Amino acid sequence: MSTKYGRVFNFSAGPASLPLPVLEQVRDEMVNYKNSGMSVMEMSHRSKEFDEILANATSVTKELLGIGDQYEVLFLQGGASLQFAMLPMNLYQTGKPVDMIHTGSWSEMAIKELKKGYEMRTVYSGESNKFTQIPSFNEDQFNPSASYAYLCSNNTIEGTQFKSFPKTAAPLIADMSSDFLSRKFDMNQFGVVFAGAQKNVGPSGVCMVIIRKDLAERGDEKLPTMLQYRTHVKAGSRYNTPPAFGIYVAGLVMNWIKTSGGLEALEKTNEMKAKILYDTIDKSGGFYSCPVAKDCRSLMNVVWRVKPNGQANEDMETAMISEAKKSGLIEIKGHRSVGGMRASIYNAMPVEGVQALADFMVQFQKKNG
Amino acid sequence: MSTKYGRVFNFSAGPASLPLPVLEQVRDEMVNYKNSGMSVMEMSHRSKEFDEILANATSVTKELLGIGDQYEVLFLQGGASLQFAMLPMNLYQTGKPVDMIHTGSWSEMAIKELKKGYEMRTVYSGESNKFTQIPSFNEDQFNPSASYAYLCSNNTIEGTQFKSFPKTAAPLIADMSSDFLSRKFDMNQFGVVFAGAQKNVGPSGVCMVIIRKDLAERGDEKLPTMLQYRTHVKAGSRYNTPPAFGIYVAGLVMNWIKTSGGLEALEKTNEMKAKILYDTIDKSGGFYSCPVAKDCRSLMNVVWRVKPNGQANEDMETAMISEAKKSGLIEIKGHRSVGGMRASIYNAMPVEGVQALADFMVQFQKKNG
Repeated sequence: MSTKYGRVFNFSAGPASLPLPVLEQVRDEMVNYKNSGMSVMEMSHRSKEFDEILANATSVTKELLGIGDQYEVLFLQGGASLQFAMLPMNLYQTGKPVDMIHTGSWSEMAIKELKKGYEMRTVYSGESNKFTQIPSFNEDQFNPSASYAYLCSNNTIEGTQFKSFPKTAAPLIADMSSDFLSRKFDMNQFGVVFAGAQKNVGPSGVCMVIIRKDLAERGDEKLPTMLQYRTHVKAGSRYNTPPAFGIYVAGLVMNWIKTSGGLEALEKTNEMKAKILYDTIDKSGGFYSCPVAKDCRSLMNVVWRVKPNGQANEDMETAMISEAKKSGLIEIKGHRSVGGMRASIYNAMPVEGVQALADFMVQFQKKNG
Repeated sequence: MSTKYGRVFNFSAGPASLPLPVLEQVRDEMVNYKNSGMSVMEMSHRSKEFDEILANATSVTKELLGIGDQYEVLFLQGGASLQFAMLPMNLYQTGKPVDMIHTGSWSEMAIKELKKGYEMRTVYSGESNKFTQIPSFNEDQFNPSASYAYLCSNNTIEGTQFKSFPKTAAPLIADMSSDFLSRKFDMNQFGVVFAGAQKNVGPSGVCMVIIRKDLAERGDEKLPTMLQYRTHVKAGSRYNTPPAFGIYVAGLVMNWIKTSGGLEALEKTNEMKAKILYDTIDKSGGFYSCPVAKDCRSLMNVVWRVKPNGQANEDMETAMISEAKKSGLIEIKGHRSVGGMRASIYNAMPVEGVQALADFMVQFQKKNG
């Protein structure tokens, strides 16, 4: 397979593929950004040039989400993992346990931090079905006076995804690290949405937090300054030096999303990409098997096992990973905690890449089935 | 003035100039890093390629500092500002007030966080001399059983710098954000040294923390996972997705420091650069005036006022900033909190840039003096 610059198709779960036009622009602007005489990495974060970069990243986020001034767009550091601590620190109210939906490894991480000093109530846990399903929820399953309700919209490791979001009177919070800006959704359903940028939006080192303004004011002012949402709202993500280069790249990726037709167009492409792989799996006569219930399969992370004789065959999976790599299809190994195979097909993965993987899967089955 | 790529001389206090050979390498590796078929921004942080990037950044840090396994090198997020909170959170011991040396705006930020819930004792405050001096200290000024003693080694805003470090039996902690890896120092004097990378080492979004192993274990395990040093020590800075691209660039900058002769050679160059500017100021017959006592002037941030008639003239300072910009000498405005002029001349600022600024200062005086 011959690709521009000898690039591979990279199915990594994150950091992950970025749009090539964005990388080319970043390359071309590296030693002198728009005739400023500097790289973006060298610019004062208070400079006119960076003002524009940050303003663009903020406004294109709002435009893609269709939100106005009731929400703030923050570009923070520490990834989703720091959000697991900041959320209860800022939003927990004594005597109002958090309503938690537990759908896999990443909600488990949020639960782990919550249990360090806060009360919670498990609305749902997928442990009994090994996190292969996400049910629909009724509003009466939730406590309207919970501090907040929490979910992880796409489960990178287990390959599941919420197809619709529950209703509750409490502020709903979603970790969208692995499907943010990959499909349309109504932000007005949420109090807070956060996402590490390194899947669909940019490089690692930037965590986007979209927060309803009133919630940003809820935390105790005695909390460490850097760990209060209000600090970053007041300072427009520049209380201290922000991850400037990452914000620049994220802005370019979001501009690319916009010029590619926005979330609606992207969602259609993402559905098409996922269908190619799920069809390949489902039509393999059992050689490939996806453990996830059909109505909750992720459009972002497609997981499967190789079962030549009805049983997962780890040696054959290892062989598949290594043969795929020789064909320029890399990082299709499942997460170490669950094993098997996984292809992450975020926004920037082109249809050709997905088709190349599907073709490879068919060939691999012919040889080994 | 004609420079490669039309680049300017950028005297920003941070983010700041990076070595051009590093930027060129980053540009050339942008769409396909070392034949991996990917950008560094797209790589799994668990990939073999990133293993090597992180291992290089860690080992070159240790080599430059001449330290062994008694210290850990961490690449964290949140900047120095998050360290102001993490340090007392992890290292404070009840009944053992922190010994604090207060030399300017950045130690003040550390004090502000400390006062949110910990006891401290001010060993020294430069408030009475408007932070224009840093005295020498005797060991008996310190409490040997303090939780730790704290200082900011270089004061970016005030233009002062510690020329030697105090002795105390308590662990000594230094915020070296603005002079880390700009001169030789004995790391064995310190329990913790930390530095936002965006002055001397790399882009923003990476905070280097060099911590003595025993101190990383001191914090309560009930602290939020991301805010415990031990978490990052155990996981080798990969508890969650690290700021991978920034670590890559920081590694390249440190490789550049090493091949440029290491800290000793760099220190000599930095001394020479600073001397060019301080001499220009001191020989101006009072037209330029540096408020800082001669024996504590910073090699990194040179501050001065323009005093055509013995009084600081803000209009003339504004004119100077704007004329300098036309000559490709940018960001020489002092910090808004103190006014006046400032040239930050970190590692990557070449001697030619400093000489160009000095020549400009002489010309400006001729026209306006």
